[in-house]
Amino acid sequence: MSDAQDHKQKMQQQQAEQRAKVSELRDPEKGLVLVHTGNGKGKSSSAFGVVIRALGWKQKVGVVQFIKGKWITGERQFFDRLGEVTWHTMGEGFTWDTQDRDRDIAAAEAAFAKARDMMASGDYDLVVMDEINIALRYDYLKVEDVITGLEGRAKGTTAVLTGRDAKPELCDYADLVTEMTEVKHPFHSGIKAQRGVDF
Amino acid sequence: MSDAQDHKQKMQQQQAEQRAKVSELRDPEKGLVLVHTGNGKGKSSSAFGVVIRALGWKQKVGVVQFIKGKWITGERQFFDRLGEVTWHTMGEGFTWDTQDRDRDIAAAEAAFAKARDMMASGDYDLVVMDEINIALRYDYLKVEDVITGLEGRAKGTTAVLTGRDAKPELCDYADLVTEMTEVKHPFHSGIKAQRGVDF
Repeated sequence: MSDAQDHKQKMQQQQAEQRAKVSELRDPEKGLVLVHTGNGKGKSSSAFGVVIRALGWKQKVGVVQFIKGKWITGERQFFDRLGEVTWHTMGEGFTWDTQDRDRDIAAAEAAFAKARDMMASGDYDLVVMDEINIALRYDYLKVEDVITGLEGRAKGTTAVLTGRDAKPELCDYADLVTEMTEVKHPFHSGIKAQRGVDF
Repeated sequence: MSDAQDHKQKMQQQQAEQRAKVSELRDPEKGLVLVHTGNGKGKSSSAFGVVIRALGWKQKVGVVQFIKGKWITGERQFFDRLGEVTWHTMGEGFTWDTQDRDRDIAAAEAAFAKARDMMASGDYDLVVMDEINIALRYDYLKVEDVITGLEGRAKGTTAVLTGRDAKPELCDYADLVTEMTEVKHPFHSGIKAQRGVDF
């Protein structure tokens, strides 16, 4: 078989597989639980990429940011300006700005209550809980409460939970877990964090 | 030391580290080369998350999509509607729609020429080459040509290259390589690809 024939055959096979996949794409019934974890970059940014996709399909989106309260980020400025996303930021900002564990816990619980209500309402196609894994890691939230909240979400609502060190119980519950692994990182080679890329 | 004191001390240390990091955040000089690869989800969506961050900081962004030509995606619809991103999609669509290797190569080369011109122009803070690794994997593009194009980019231009099976030469050249690893995938447990999440 010539290279060209071989190529054509491979492409035909991929086309058939792709078509089979596309033909399955019309099921909006079930909402998924997605976890983005790992020590690499891309956990939050890929969640915001998913937000963009959802908005492109005219879906309704809510975002609750845990931890990153007071820091000005590009994503926050963008979505504020866009005005299409219900956005809630945990009131106390970075936990290391408060240095008060009880306040941190109260702030995390209030933020999760907001996310839980959005998930249960049936009004949202997508609810992002950005950096919630950090709140879980510090035991500001109980993993069983988060799972109960996810379990109570409306049928068509997809939830995305981000942050390193995702709890094993949460990963067990999730439909999809993606680990972002740092293979090579510019901070390690003396390059500074940059606006637009890192925050 | 009490738990509360211990917590406070940890938080103070993190606060100091965070401040040191934030104080370094004002260097817009150097553009980075970022590669998102691996067999997991989030390679393209995190690139679009980076686009959002850049737009939030009023940066200028260009996107060239390789391979995913004709497929209607949420990101494409969103950015078309937004009208703030210079967008170019490789003309021939999915390579397995053409089944003609020469046309695929010509389309990939034309798409990369577009990306190279944007990178060299100095007009863009960020240029995303989405799924370019697929074009490299099929030898539609030469990795040395892509590296030459990256090398010729303007000083402040960051480039993001996505797609599985990134070439080792490209990873060596890049400042940052993130591997997205599929830990648990819904297609494997019988859940269909979904609008807004997967495309």
